Amino acid sequence: MPTPPVPIRDLADLRLRLRAFAQARDWDQFHSPKNLAMALIVEAAELVEHFQWLTAEESAALPPQKKAAVADELADVLVYVVRLADRLDIDLLHAAAEKIARNEAKYPAESVKGSARKYTEY
Amino acid sequence: MPTPPVPIRDLADLRLRLRAFAQARDWDQFHSPKNLAMALIVEAAELVEHFQWLTAEESAALPPQKKAAVADELADVLVYVVRLADRLDIDLLHAAAEKIARNEAKYPAESVKGSARKYTEY
Amino acid sequence: MPTPPVPIRDLADLRLRLRAFAQARDWDQFHSPKNLAMALIVEAAELVEHFQWLTAEESAALPPQKKAAVADELADVLVYVVRLADRLDIDLLHAAAEKIARNEAKYPAESVKGSARKYTEY
Amino acid sequence: MPTPPVPIRDLADLRLRLRAFAQARDWDQFHSPKNLAMALIVEAAELVEHFQWLTAEESAALPPQKKAAVADELADVLVYVVRLADRLDIDLLHAAAEKIARNEAKYPAESVKGSARKYTEY
Repeated sequence: MPTPPVPIRDLADLRLRLRAFAQARDWDQFHSPKNLAMALIVEAAELVEHFQWLTAEESAALPPQKKAAVADELADVLVYVVRLADRLDIDLLHAAAEKIARNEAKYPAESVKGSARKYTEY
Repeated sequence: MPTPPVPIRDLADLRLRLRAFAQARDWDQFHSPKNLAMALIVEAAELVEHFQWLTAEESAALPPQKKAAVADELADVLVYVVRLADRLDIDLLHAAAEKIARNEAKYPAESVKGSARKYTEY
Repeated sequence: MPTPPVPIRDLADLRLRLRAFAQARDWDQFHSPKNLAMALIVEAAELVEHFQWLTAEESAALPPQKKAAVADELADVLVYVVRLADRLDIDLLHAAAEKIARNEAKYPAESVKGSARKYTEY
Repeated sequence: MPTPPVPIRDLADLRLRLRAFAQARDWDQFHSPKNLAMALIVEAAELVEHFQWLTAEESAALPPQKKAAVADELADVLVYVVRLADRLDIDLLHAAAEKIARNEAKYPAESVKGSARKYTEY
């Protein structure tokens, strides 16, 4: 019988869970940032694979089984994002806050809104 | 003068920030899950690019400027992970908890530990 | 003044050109198959980036400048495909012929045709 | 009994074979450049997956079975490169020749050679 999942409270909790998981298996030796970046993009591609032949509309209305598979792949990507950030001692939420601030300066809502056509050039 | 970043408390906060950001710019029309998956892997590749010619050792000892650039790319990936989960109404931490439970069953620490050679087959 | 491009006759010619290019620069030391696979996917992502916000229809009707940029990225991908095959002593056209034969057996035209709906499950 | 592969002579032959394959199955409807770019990067990631936990040295000395699997993935990437080029009417060898000419101007052998350390900045 599978163990019921232990809930994860937040990113910090996830980071510690993944760290313990790797250490218990002696896997840190494989988890160089270089290798983790490769693993991350492999999982990102498994996500892309679910969408490659769908129209935009179909991709927004996934049947339950497919949605569950996509959730699983998204979790895989998140796992490697968090693991890589841990190995490099990067604060993800801080980095995201800085990124959003830069994007707000770069794409002011008032001047961008409605210029849908030019979105593809950003 | 750039606005100082508004701190992000957790993934739920990040989700709302990104949702507001897209809505203020009328960008939801571009953010189909299909397109977001593409944007996610493009950002993942920008991360990979930083590591492609480095040795494993070099990748674990990045100079500060390079580390900051990697943090920036990781934030980009996280942003699209969260955005895509929001569009599909997926609970990321729940999905991660389920994934970890499955991996714990699949790779029991006691039998996996030390069998480094076989890691590449997982 | 830029040198006019020396025409490339075929894949074998391209392989030799790329080999000479790397050797003249002492770059073989960086061109492990692992690193070349990373470089290949980075170029693939630069290709994807051109299409990420386009509709399927827009992607089939690129303006000339964008089409030239896409051609450039496709060339980059091809370059790494050929370089990686060379480093591993793989005959690309032979591998492609075997692949097509397997796909012909896997997806018989008579039974697949018209079942467009199921394409996404292949 | 599987059909023996029909040899492929060159890229032009491969292009025609792939075009006929898609037409016989009525698959052109799925092969927008956008979708083909997604399929291409998914195959590139399957290639990366073979290398993600290997050292550079291991990646250059693959056992036969693994090498055959890598050849298969490389063929998949090539197939989508050629298919995408066909859909966009791009001459791959011409694009590659132009790319190499630009790279020769950008990285003159005499000044680049030996500056291995700076390769990572290119």
